Amino acid sequence: MNIFPTIEASVADAVQPKKSTTQPAPQVAVLGVSGFAGGELARLLLNHPRLNSTAPQFYSRAVAAEDAKATRLTDIHPNLLASPPVDHPVVPFNWERVRESGASLLFLATPHEQSRELVPDALARGLRIIDLSGAWRLKEAANRDVYKLVDANPELATEVQTDATYGCPELHRDAISEARVVANPGCYATSIILALAPLVQAKLVDLDRGIVCDSKSGVSGAGKAATARTHFMYAADNLSAYSVFGHRHTGELLEQLGLDSSQIRFTPHLLPIPRGILSTVYLRLKETTDSSQISACYQEFYRHSPMVRLRGRGHLPQIQFVTRTNYCDIGFELGPDGRSLVIVSCLDNLLKGAAGQAVQNMNLMYGWNESEGLL
Amino acid sequence: MNIFPTIEASVADAVQPKKSTTQPAPQVAVLGVSGFAGGELARLLLNHPRLNSTAPQFYSRAVAAEDAKATRLTDIHPNLLASPPVDHPVVPFNWERVRESGASLLFLATPHEQSRELVPDALARGLRIIDLSGAWRLKEAANRDVYKLVDANPELATEVQTDATYGCPELHRDAISEARVVANPGCYATSIILALAPLVQAKLVDLDRGIVCDSKSGVSGAGKAATARTHFMYAADNLSAYSVFGHRHTGELLEQLGLDSSQIRFTPHLLPIPRGILSTVYLRLKETTDSSQISACYQEFYRHSPMVRLRGRGHLPQIQFVTRTNYCDIGFELGPDGRSLVIVSCLDNLLKGAAGQAVQNMNLMYGWNESEGLL
Amino acid sequence: MNIFPTIEASVADAVQPKKSTTQPAPQVAVLGVSGFAGGELARLLLNHPRLNSTAPQFYSRAVAAEDAKATRLTDIHPNLLASPPVDHPVVPFNWERVRESGASLLFLATPHEQSRELVPDALARGLRIIDLSGAWRLKEAANRDVYKLVDANPELATEVQTDATYGCPELHRDAISEARVVANPGCYATSIILALAPLVQAKLVDLDRGIVCDSKSGVSGAGKAATARTHFMYAADNLSAYSVFGHRHTGELLEQLGLDSSQIRFTPHLLPIPRGILSTVYLRLKETTDSSQISACYQEFYRHSPMVRLRGRGHLPQIQFVTRTNYCDIGFELGPDGRSLVIVSCLDNLLKGAAGQAVQNMNLMYGWNESEGLL
Amino acid sequence: MNIFPTIEASVADAVQPKKSTTQPAPQVAVLGVSGFAGGELARLLLNHPRLNSTAPQFYSRAVAAEDAKATRLTDIHPNLLASPPVDHPVVPFNWERVRESGASLLFLATPHEQSRELVPDALARGLRIIDLSGAWRLKEAANRDVYKLVDANPELATEVQTDATYGCPELHRDAISEARVVANPGCYATSIILALAPLVQAKLVDLDRGIVCDSKSGVSGAGKAATARTHFMYAADNLSAYSVFGHRHTGELLEQLGLDSSQIRFTPHLLPIPRGILSTVYLRLKETTDSSQISACYQEFYRHSPMVRLRGRGHLPQIQFVTRTNYCDIGFELGPDGRSLVIVSCLDNLLKGAAGQAVQNMNLMYGWNESEGLL
Repeated sequence: MNIFPTIEASVADAVQPKKSTTQPAPQVAVLGVSGFAGGELARLLLNHPRLNSTAPQFYSRAVAAEDAKATRLTDIHPNLLASPPVDHPVVPFNWERVRESGASLLFLATPHEQSRELVPDALARGLRIIDLSGAWRLKEAANRDVYKLVDANPELATEVQTDATYGCPELHRDAISEARVVANPGCYATSIILALAPLVQAKLVDLDRGIVCDSKSGVSGAGKAATARTHFMYAADNLSAYSVFGHRHTGELLEQLGLDSSQIRFTPHLLPIPRGILSTVYLRLKETTDSSQISACYQEFYRHSPMVRLRGRGHLPQIQFVTRTNYCDIGFELGPDGRSLVIVSCLDNLLKGAAGQAVQNMNLMYGWNESEGLL
Repeated sequence: MNIFPTIEASVADAVQPKKSTTQPAPQVAVLGVSGFAGGELARLLLNHPRLNSTAPQFYSRAVAAEDAKATRLTDIHPNLLASPPVDHPVVPFNWERVRESGASLLFLATPHEQSRELVPDALARGLRIIDLSGAWRLKEAANRDVYKLVDANPELATEVQTDATYGCPELHRDAISEARVVANPGCYATSIILALAPLVQAKLVDLDRGIVCDSKSGVSGAGKAATARTHFMYAADNLSAYSVFGHRHTGELLEQLGLDSSQIRFTPHLLPIPRGILSTVYLRLKETTDSSQISACYQEFYRHSPMVRLRGRGHLPQIQFVTRTNYCDIGFELGPDGRSLVIVSCLDNLLKGAAGQAVQNMNLMYGWNESEGLL
Repeated sequence: MNIFPTIEASVADAVQPKKSTTQPAPQVAVLGVSGFAGGELARLLLNHPRLNSTAPQFYSRAVAAEDAKATRLTDIHPNLLASPPVDHPVVPFNWERVRESGASLLFLATPHEQSRELVPDALARGLRIIDLSGAWRLKEAANRDVYKLVDANPELATEVQTDATYGCPELHRDAISEARVVANPGCYATSIILALAPLVQAKLVDLDRGIVCDSKSGVSGAGKAATARTHFMYAADNLSAYSVFGHRHTGELLEQLGLDSSQIRFTPHLLPIPRGILSTVYLRLKETTDSSQISACYQEFYRHSPMVRLRGRGHLPQIQFVTRTNYCDIGFELGPDGRSLVIVSCLDNLLKGAAGQAVQNMNLMYGWNESEGLL
Repeated sequence: MNIFPTIEASVADAVQPKKSTTQPAPQVAVLGVSGFAGGELARLLLNHPRLNSTAPQFYSRAVAAEDAKATRLTDIHPNLLASPPVDHPVVPFNWERVRESGASLLFLATPHEQSRELVPDALARGLRIIDLSGAWRLKEAANRDVYKLVDANPELATEVQTDATYGCPELHRDAISEARVVANPGCYATSIILALAPLVQAKLVDLDRGIVCDSKSGVSGAGKAATARTHFMYAADNLSAYSVFGHRHTGELLEQLGLDSSQIRFTPHLLPIPRGILSTVYLRLKETTDSSQISACYQEFYRHSPMVRLRGRGHLPQIQFVTRTNYCDIGFELGPDGRSLVIVSCLDNLLKGAAGQAVQNMNLMYGWNESEGLL
């Protein structure tokens, strides 16, 4: 399978964004609104200028005990209370309710097993879908193994998988604009892919030497489930590495960057902060370079990408710069040898790493300005 | 019931500590070692100079799923690993095992329902007991209602309850030294009782005006169970009041200070820190006073109390001053009217508020120096 | 001096907001943009829908060494970087530059001594002013003592002081709409005044018993200066009370609520979080009441106040609910005696407690919707 | 210069610790007690079993304004207050006072410029010295450039430099026991050297591929000076990389591990926690290996090192495991290819990374048990 062209195509996208036609706003529905990404997604949709007159519908997963009790969005996410209060009911999901709502765009903020099951059904009902889970991100079956997905109808699943578009606007802008199923990227994967894609595409990286990606994420990335790991006493005043050599987002790095597994190491860490990811990426350049060439490579690649902020050499981004924004900030330092490069990229895992990127994808799907409702 | 004399008696204790006879170290056992207080208790006992040669026994509660899997103390509390490693097994609790271990002192770091059930049995087996739960702290049945305790043998329970000593060394030093059952005080209660007892006992407080106790505790006070409340995302960057007008420790304030419920308000808050309590106490003095009188009152009351540090007027303690110590620090500010008083007291909820105070009580029970193993 | 009518008037405001005429957007200037409140103010103004076409001007204080070096807004506040970058210069302040900019509305986010000096000059130049400092909030000279203000021209200062309007929209909506000088309230004061004003105005509070206000604020309230207090090692994992019996905001409570100093106690605490205030307010009602009466009192008072969210009985707000919003959330618990009341109010000290309230005041001054640019 | 033998020698030390003779406890003095490391050092010395009867002397640096005012240890470090209070004066430093105190061991917790100046004088006075700064750690002049040291007497300085022993007990146990000047290692350097030394010494590492060391430290590592970087608002809810390609501890890695600068990358990050370091180290092994070989290599190397805890494969240490201990914990994961290795090491930067390691070195210098006073 030839993955690498994907990026070259995406670069072409970056160079010449297709003239899109503005489309009427869809009625949207969100399934799985009770999680952290779901809550941010609800906030963004309720304030999106294109969706003002069409109130989004919110659904809870039938399976979650906590959802069964919650009946209003603001009971689950008290920060979303308006003044005077507006009642946004959260109802248990079923297809009949979705049909009645008239929704034509469905956001899935559900666990990957549920997304894997629901997307084929949604397609059959003529909906467009933006799935925030990892269920449909990976083209290679071997890369999906880690998710232990089970398909009721494997043939149909293969078809849907082929049809699904990896929702990284900076790489696949055009494909997203016409996609029926957008697989919203993983938070870690976004931070690393955006740091590396320009250099890998320009063939500047000595891949034999290997790339090291050391990533650190706030606790919201670990999900809303109350577990030992997400207990304040475990997370606070602490730092821990996890899923070494085995994190699910690794497959996205391989496929989107066209690398094989010997060429990249990725280790995630759990930071004692609510939100934000910082990835420190180490690589060696094929040839001695000066930093202006590196800057130029990034600037060229992202010249049509409003959600990437290039901080440039010596201006390393920090998590605070991006928290509660949809930006991915990128900076770098070039070693005195002119070949050792350290890149730092930052984003908010719930926004550019999840709900914000999902809205960015919606904007592209409907021909709107890519950053609409995200500034 | 006449509660107030309790304090006057305790003051007498404070004035003239009884000459105690040093006793041989008991074999000790800890039941419920997996929680935060249990972990601190294990750490203190393993390093206690009197207990060096008698390794403590650790038991898990049979009911807890997590305990069933844990077999070594360091699997539950990785910070306790020695180098080279020493194996402290944690075994499911039963009386036969305790008997075989030769333990004569039993620490209970169990939930209050379990402590309520186990203490009569332990007494019947001739053990002395230090119970860290709220099960046996309250003499008045009405004050215990909030715990919803059920006694298999109500008559026996009444007998044990009468026998149990409230384990606040600064108030009940002598009674503790001879106690068979010590009910270790609540963390909030300790911080407030130590702030108020000297002034209330000296009849300086205008009780009609009412006392306000605004307390703030770190998350370890909420226990090890992973819940929405203890989730990092809920606790971090947040502050919340809870159990307003209904916290379980209120009864301890009433009984130990000899107050009725109209005379004191107590509101706990959940702080975004791992450990530590700060209580801000507001009261009006009966008469215009100067601050040296207040200082003298405290100094007199605590002159035999090595675990209370009086910071004095204008030197308000902070949580950092006491974290990971067994001290309760007390400071105050007197208003320009000479009658309005604000007292601030601080302690570490897992030490002076739980495990450290339990060891302090053990020291008294065996005639050792009160602060042994606690500095 | 009769202060209490101020509130009764404000209540009338609340009942019947004057029909305001929308005015054209002013050119605005911000002096003192380098602090935390200044940064939030810049963010709000840059995104305010009425000000879109009129770029705000930013000035640094001439005295601050750090400002001398900074020349762009995004060098001081990196989170404000746009993509593609927009250059907002920050220039040293002088009146000539302000005149050339055509500004007719001046925000002062300067220290109180500088605000005290600058406001008379600004008035003389025909500007309207919103001052975020404490310089002009207090009508009573005695209450201002704590600020140690020095007036070059005392007569003029008295005149300006008389003219200045306390910028609490919920109390003085009409006066603000016509004000030339708005003294933006203190952060703590806002949280307490909004919690108490409805009950005090309705004469429900037993003032003889005394009101206790125990407030806790995030570190941004301590300002941007790097000091021992704002050092991470001092603030993190800590809680401390400060300025007991002597905090500057106390005068605002007395004047705005019409209380004398024996009737209210206020103690601020420094929380280990970046932003947010929670005030726990204790009082006794004059008569036995049920909670629906309390709720009704609040609802009536705030029925025209979009930036106050009433959580109601038993739904105590938490700091997380209001962080990064301009809301003040209020909830309460009524004791079983029907007379003891605990009120909890929360706000973001940099928004409703500073920059957000300043924008709210601007909205009123120009006849716009009170919450415009704040949701 | 042949550095690598240093390690081979140190390995020999590890294998056969020399029989040491217990020596009488020295009178000790601490210069620069006001910083974080100084405070921890004071705490350890005051509680050290060998030093009980000989109260340590504390000196402030003459230059620091804050020290000029402080006269008691507990004014600077309020957590150190004893009950009843013990008065430990902190006096401005001069050699006459040190002489009068009878001190024969001097701890320097001073900035590196001061340590560089003071150590030759101290040697001339017959003192033994443990210097916590970076002044004397580096043998190669080029590696010291980053410190910009100026020597009044370059020849003498060269002599002292040659004499100074790098105070990593796990590598240089014997040399330390006889050292006159011990240069206590850097905190980051300790965490990385202990992670790598066993594998590098055993020649298992493919050095051509390059080693990546991604380290994260709590804020106490940034020092007590109140700066923008240590301001709570900058540090909290944030993560930032700094000193990329230029951190001072890099020279220690090169010299102690016998590497050249092309073979190792080191990037430090500032974590939003008070204390603790976690280093994630990436390397490739020369040959396919299984994890038991890696474990054996570590066990052999550290079999006489009580302050290193080997967590083993799949048991990665976390910062919480080591906070407030003198342990360095090491764990690792071996990739499915049998050659990619990720090592995680953790320590408390103020203890094993500073004051604790200094006490460990003192123990060796006087023939005591290496971990005495550190458990």
